[in-house]
Order: sequence, then C-alpha cells, then structure tokens
Amino acid sequence: MTAVVAEEERLARVALNAIAEPGDPRLGRLVAALGAQEVYDRLRADVDLTGMRSEAGERLAATDPERILGEADDLGIRFLVPGDGEWPGGLDDLATVEPVNQLSGEPLGLWVKGPLDLAAVCRRSVAVVGSRSATTYGTSVAADLSAHLAGEAVTVVSGAAFGIDQAAHRGALAGGGQTVAVLACGVDRPYPAAHRGLLEHLAEVGAVVSELRPGCAPTRVRFLSRNRLIAALTTGTVVVEAAVRSGALNTANWAARLNRVLMGVPGPVTSAPSEGVHELVREGRAGLVTRGEHVMELVSPAGRHLHRSPRGETQGRDRLDLTEQRVLEAVPLVRAVESSAIARTAGLGVDTVRTTLSRLAELGWVESEGPRWRRAGEQLC
Amino acid sequence: MTAVVAEEERLARVALNAIAEPGDPRLGRLVAALGAQEVYDRLRADVDLTGMRSEAGERLAATDPERILGEADDLGIRFLVPGDGEWPGGLDDLATVEPVNQLSGEPLGLWVKGPLDLAAVCRRSVAVVGSRSATTYGTSVAADLSAHLAGEAVTVVSGAAFGIDQAAHRGALAGGGQTVAVLACGVDRPYPAAHRGLLEHLAEVGAVVSELRPGCAPTRVRFLSRNRLIAALTTGTVVVEAAVRSGALNTANWAARLNRVLMGVPGPVTSAPSEGVHELVREGRAGLVTRGEHVMELVSPAGRHLHRSPRGETQGRDRLDLTEQRVLEAVPLVRAVESSAIARTAGLGVDTVRTTLSRLAELGWVESEGPRWRRAGEQLC
Repeated sequence: MTAVVAEEERLARVALNAIAEPGDPRLGRLVAALGAQEVYDRLRADVDLTGMRSEAGERLAATDPERILGEADDLGIRFLVPGDGEWPGGLDDLATVEPVNQLSGEPLGLWVKGPLDLAAVCRRSVAVVGSRSATTYGTSVAADLSAHLAGEAVTVVSGAAFGIDQAAHRGALAGGGQTVAVLACGVDRPYPAAHRGLLEHLAEVGAVVSELRPGCAPTRVRFLSRNRLIAALTTGTVVVEAAVRSGALNTANWAARLNRVLMGVPGPVTSAPSEGVHELVREGRAGLVTRGEHVMELVSPAGRHLHRSPRGETQGRDRLDLTEQRVLEAVPLVRAVESSAIARTAGLGVDTVRTTLSRLAELGWVESEGPRWRRAGEQLC
Repeated sequence: MTAVVAEEERLARVALNAIAEPGDPRLGRLVAALGAQEVYDRLRADVDLTGMRSEAGERLAATDPERILGEADDLGIRFLVPGDGEWPGGLDDLATVEPVNQLSGEPLGLWVKGPLDLAAVCRRSVAVVGSRSATTYGTSVAADLSAHLAGEAVTVVSGAAFGIDQAAHRGALAGGGQTVAVLACGVDRPYPAAHRGLLEHLAEVGAVVSELRPGCAPTRVRFLSRNRLIAALTTGTVVVEAAVRSGALNTANWAARLNRVLMGVPGPVTSAPSEGVHELVREGRAGLVTRGEHVMELVSPAGRHLHRSPRGETQGRDRLDLTEQRVLEAVPLVRAVESSAIARTAGLGVDTVRTTLSRLAELGWVESEGPRWRRAGEQLC
C-alpha cells in the first residue's frame, strides 16, 4: 500500500529540510503541529513564529525545492517523506521521545540512493556500530556477525565509518545480504573519502541514506543526529568495540531511548575499544552477545531463534549419582580391570559395582573387554 | 569469642570425616539431626540407620581419631569444627541448600595448614577461579584483579589449580595480601605436583584448607565437593575464563545457589576459555566485571566502593546545547578568528555568538587570543 503524498507536501519538506539542521526539535514540533506546508507557507510569509530564527523566511525564499529535487534526481537520489510507501515505520518512534543534545524528532524527509526499498529492508534490520579506531579483533567479529545476520535475511545498518561500520557493511555483503549506510552528510559525498568505493557499491546494491540534502558536509552535530536515525531504523543495535568516547555509545543511547534491543559484544578487558561496551553491559543497559545466533534470539519474536547454550560433557557427568560417579572414578582409563578390582578401589560391594557398571556402559561412560572394564574414550578433566 | 568444642565432639567429627566422602548429604543430615557424637556412637555400635552403608561401623572401629589428629598436628595441620572460633561463618549456608550432584551440607570439619585465622580472613574474601587451560590474557587479568583485591585487604580464595587459580594466588601474594587455597585432597599433598612450591608457600604465609584428611588423593567427585567450599567461604566468586566444560562453572553454580555475588570477566568472543563466562553473563547469572574496582563495588556493603564509570569527553560535549554546539563547530581548531567570522560560519547573530563564546570559554571549550577565538586544545572526534 503506497500512500500518495501531495507534491506540495514533498516540496515543502524539501525546502524546510534544506534550511534546517537535522533533528531541530523546534521545527519538528512546528511541523508536527501545523503540517509541513503550513509551516513552509507561514515562514515564507515571514509570520513570526516563537523561537524560529528570523532569517528562516529569507533563506526559504532563496531555496528552490523543485530544483533541489531535480538535481538530486539527476544523481539518482530520491527524497522520501512520511506517507510514502518506502518510509520506514520505525522513524515514527522518534516523534515520541524527548530531545537529547537538543536533537530529536522524526526527520522531515530522507534522501536515499540505491535500489533497496528502505521500508521493506528495515523491517528486519539490525544496526552494527562501533569504534572508528577498531582493532582487528573488533572488525573481524563485526564482519562475522554481520555475515551471519545477512545469512538470516536481516539487513545490516551502519554508518560507513572507518573500523566497525565498514566491517559491518563488508560482512553483510560477504554474507550475501542487504546493507544500508546512514550518513551524516549528503549521500552523494564520499565520507570518509577512503570509503568512496564502498559507498558507490552500496548505492548500487544496497541503500545510502541521509537526512541531509545532497552536497552537505558532515559536522559533529550531524553525526549525533544521524545516530538517532540508525537506532530508529532498526530493531536492535549491536555495539562492537566502543571506547568510552565513542560515538557508537551515542547510537546505543538512542537505541535504548527508543526501546530498541541494545546489545554489546565483549572483548578483552585490557582493550580500550571494548571498555564502552563493557560499561553498557555492566550497567545492565545492553545484553551481552557473542555470536550472530544471540543477536537473532534477541531481535526475533519471542521463542523464535532460541539459541541453545553450549553444554560441556561435565553436565552429563554431573547427572550421574554419587555411586555411579564413585564407580566411574574407580574404572581405569586405559588398562581394563575386573569388577572385583573396581569394587575394592571404590570401596563398594561387588554386586553394587556390577549393576552400576552396566548402567554406566549403557550411558556410554565405560566399556567392557571380556570380564574387564575401562573408561569409554574419555578424558579426565 | 572462641566457643569451646568438647574433645569428644571433635574426635567424633575426625572419625566420621575419615570414613565419609565430603558432601555426603545422608551423613550430613544425620549429624544435623542427632549430633556428630551420637551418630559416631550409634554407627560404632552398629545400630542400623536407614541408608547408611553397613560397613560404616566396621570402618569406624578401625579408625583412631586421636592418632589421626596427632599425626596431623605433627604436620602442622589443625582440624576445625563448627563452634571453633576459627570456623568460617559462611559454611553454615551450606546446610540450607538442596544437594546438587548428590553433594551438599556443611563440612564435618576442615583441615587447615597455615598461619591465617580462617574465620577472620574469610570475612572479607572473594573467590577468583577459572580454567586450568587458561590463556596468558586470563592469567594476567586474574593476577591483576587479585592483586587489586589484596590491596583492598580482601582475601583471595582459590583452588591452587593450574591456570587461573595459580594466577589468583600469585596475584594476591604480589599485591601483599592474604590468600587461601582450598584443595580436593589432603592439605599435605602437593596437587598438582608442579605447585608444590606454591602450596608450601601458602602453608607458610596463608592457609591451605581441605575437607579431606591428610594423605587423601584428589578425585573428580572431591573437586566438585571442594568447589562448594570455595563458594561458601567467600562473599563472591569471580570467574576468569571458563570454557563450557570448566569446573569453575561448578563453583559458579554453588556461588549462585548460596546467594553469593557471582561475577564474570569477559574476554574475546573468539576465545573458547571465555565462552563459559560469557554464557553466565548472557543468562544474567553473573555480573560483568572488568577490573578490581568493579568487584569491590559488588561485594561491598551498598554505597561503599562505588566505582565511577569512565566518562569520555563526548559526554561533556553532549551536555552543550544546540547553539553552543553550533558555535563550537564554527570555531577553528588552529587559527583563531574574530567572533563576526564565527557568526557567519555558524549562521547565527554576532551577539548570540559572543555570549555563547564566553560561556564556552568558561567551560574550557574555546580560548581567546585578543579579539579572536579558537578551540582549547581538543581533538575533533
């Protein structure tokens, strides 16, 4: 079902988007209350709206949304707005949370380049984010995890940054899956420049998304507002390596605020890039995950993808009763002996030992060699 | 206050301890119900007690508790029983939990070698346990953590095994603290043999403890019953590396069952010896700790030793409002510029920018150079 958005509405949003910083909560509230067209018209008519900067009308007058849309279209870039069939449902949640860093709100629109249907691929999606200054351990884990998610038809969303982000996109591609990059600059700008090839590839096979119109440069505030989109577009966020100063923790905060599933991959406690993740887990804010199956378990509807914990042989042995354990202890590992010798070693009666030995044999713990017994191919722990 | 235990009571416990396996729940229940002397007398008189093996009376008759005590005393080994001033209070809790692996109950007594007062040092104590097949990462973390605890006057309790246990004892000694080894064999037996030197040193400066009388060999069941003592003697248990088959997880289970604080140190998710620890944390059974301060925080009375989470510069910057952040973005990193130039870059009025700049200067974000401004020694993330 594709809702039809009026052309005027789309153009009003293009224009407002062009003059505003992403996540400006005042503009967001105005648009939510009056509608984009009304705000656009009033600002252009220079109607004084409390709190809006006075130059807004002037800047809007100098803005030609049709030209902006046309130029974007020439670059293969489309502008999604609420009501479009491709508008991802998760973004609505941004309207419900309080501003942080004075950033909040549903975006006025999203600039998108790439063949994927954003709404469709975000329905089953997980953000994999982390430090730019990642270790090879971190990038390797991020890539493996993303490849696993890709194999489960889960879209991997990240920020195309150095380190974990790049590994996440690459892992998803290697796993034959879908991946979406959300940028803090125009989707036509290769940022970081070293990722030009990756971003071009994502624009060909995946999707590159931004709240900022084409041509815009990244700024620190724009990274912060971008992070709220990564969290909102996805069902859950996995943080792989994040030092205590990492921007990935900002994405994690947004995920928690939006009631998304927040997950963290641990690492060596001696590794600074894992410190932020450990803090998230320690404070009970993020669940600990160590493999793709754990992520699937946490982001899937209850009961699906339940991951069976690994169980050691110990548990099997722990299920033996005390007599069985004592008899088993008395059975030699290598050289088989008769049950009478086992009874002497165990300090138990021969009949008890014989009964127990046959039960242990049925359970696969011991094996007989004529009248003699020994352990069945097992190592003493 | 040292309670006086009657000599007959102590001798009865020595004798019962000599013929029973540690943690035998039937004997434990009988002693709890009738008292050690009564059970000892009845068994020696061969009175049929349900469930007790019939040879018990015979074996008791062949047991000379005074000789056992005397021989132990010659080796510098003492036998503690409930009621002794040195009996650690935590062991009482073992009487309250259900048997596991058919093991349970407060010990009949403890054989101890070493100068420490066991009750006194266990009042502030933490178990540090983990895999025998530890990595250098694991042993390094265990040693550092134990040294930290030692420095906080917390006794480190462990099992003297290869790997994490050894590192825990060594770390505590290196930190100038007290450490207690709890063995699955007689305290006079160097097990493992390679730790003869360590165990002799612990018997000289710390304490070596066992439920088993001198001379007894270790068996698998005895490791399991030993583990319940490590958990019961301490306020909390830290697991550093435990593969899914590790005996350390058995200690962890006892700690949880005894309502002790259970903690786990994470490691690389690619490291098998960390897998068991990650499972404990993932299942919400263990709290995640990455340093000694975290352990202190969790085992200390509420509000003491609260560990302040590391905070990155990001958080400070996140506290700036949108205008402050926008102005800060517009301030050059190196070459100072006038406020009018900053106002143009930020797209804000000069007065607003001037007010904001002085606030940012007070907060340490920018510095003035005559009429010009630049960032105050800070890196762009």
